[in-house]
Amino acid sequence: MSNNQNIYDNEIFFEGYKQLRGNKNNYNNLQEKPAMQSLLPDLTGKTILDLGCGFGENCVDFIGRGAARVVGVDISEKMLAVAKGENSSQNIEYIRLDMNDINTIDEKFDIIYSSLAFHYIKSFSNLLGNINNLLNDNGLLIYSQEHPLTTGPKQGPTWTTDENKNPLHYNLSNYMESGERCVKWFVDGLIKYHRPFSEIINTIIESGFRIDKILEPVPDEKSLMLIPKMKRDIHKPNFLLIKSTKIN
Amino acid sequence: MSNNQNIYDNEIFFEGYKQLRGNKNNYNNLQEKPAMQSLLPDLTGKTILDLGCGFGENCVDFIGRGAARVVGVDISEKMLAVAKGENSSQNIEYIRLDMNDINTIDEKFDIIYSSLAFHYIKSFSNLLGNINNLLNDNGLLIYSQEHPLTTGPKQGPTWTTDENKNPLHYNLSNYMESGERCVKWFVDGLIKYHRPFSEIINTIIESGFRIDKILEPVPDEKSLMLIPKMKRDIHKPNFLLIKSTKIN
Repeated sequence: MSNNQNIYDNEIFFEGYKQLRGNKNNYNNLQEKPAMQSLLPDLTGKTILDLGCGFGENCVDFIGRGAARVVGVDISEKMLAVAKGENSSQNIEYIRLDMNDINTIDEKFDIIYSSLAFHYIKSFSNLLGNINNLLNDNGLLIYSQEHPLTTGPKQGPTWTTDENKNPLHYNLSNYMESGERCVKWFVDGLIKYHRPFSEIINTIIESGFRIDKILEPVPDEKSLMLIPKMKRDIHKPNFLLIKSTKIN
Repeated sequence: MSNNQNIYDNEIFFEGYKQLRGNKNNYNNLQEKPAMQSLLPDLTGKTILDLGCGFGENCVDFIGRGAARVVGVDISEKMLAVAKGENSSQNIEYIRLDMNDINTIDEKFDIIYSSLAFHYIKSFSNLLGNINNLLNDNGLLIYSQEHPLTTGPKQGPTWTTDENKNPLHYNLSNYMESGERCVKWFVDGLIKYHRPFSEIINTIIESGFRIDKILEPVPDEKSLMLIPKMKRDIHKPNFLLIKSTKIN
């Protein structure tokens, strides 16, 4: 097994993350999740691989939408313990595996799904090659990641504010500099990988996929009422979502 | 004929633009042009439509690369006068036409090419529909535009500098707000249209194209020697180039 960062099994990170996700009014639930759901086709009878399945909420949702079988993969024992406890089903199998080692899976799927995990992967090209091998012909890859405008700056996102402390400008830097970013999120030293838009899109295409749709979600009115600071997202989106089809 | 902005026939704009392009060491020649050329296939025997052909330099280059026939379209009489004077060929036809009216062209092409003109067009969807109709089956669209990170801010690009006046951050704003931008470039009140990345890509796909490759050029070492301030382009690219194929 590859020796990949397993930050979700860090006690401090895990508790911080659990608390964040425990609050239903968060960025994931208000922005990323509805956008991802809008990209789903009819799942009736489909087999799905969920990469970085975390607590398994999406796996159980797929079964509810008619999926025949879901395999949820995560590197974190703690996450999978919650998934098995709270989101189990006879048609869901949870596997503890580094996302760099999915070539060891001996099965093909109609859809590969991944929510906010790919920006932790160093070699996007290797990952996509493995994903292509795991998909049936014309299979779908539907995934989200932190937006490249978010991952770009080396110090993490910062903002310029006006005299009333309202966000004025997003401080973009190093956008064209592909590679490792070491930021603080619950803990110091969290490693992510930044890739500019063109690199993301070209790597997907070169890995044998056709780009079908791209989303950069913005907050709706309800979200702005619940989390007023989301109005700054008009300047810089948080998430990038891509739907693509395996064509060769 | 549509009553589109024809800024290139404004005397002050035209003189400013001519002077800029007269200097060979400019952003177009050092960044945009080599990137566009890298996207060209073998042009032998091909028919090409160049939208916003300006002085016609690319039209004559296409003939040099073996193209059988090139039609150059521009809204500006002044630009076409230079094109006809300096870049004529028996296999090039220059036509004065608003890019919104290309549906009046009664001919099909193997390749449609456009350099830095599409950000002046209000309805990208209409333009792409017309382009699709003008392409032969499996025809190519190769175009460049100002990068969405450049067109986004409503006041035009601004930068935060450090104590030594070196660029520190690009001040991004309004990136997710699609629509008109009124900026100063040689003259006040130049109208451009901003579209976020996802809108650009999705509109191309929905117009019957497959995305083949995307480029966000960065300056090479020679360019950095000639124009040292280009080092800030690592924070924010100037151009977005897209190659796509008509698939239906």
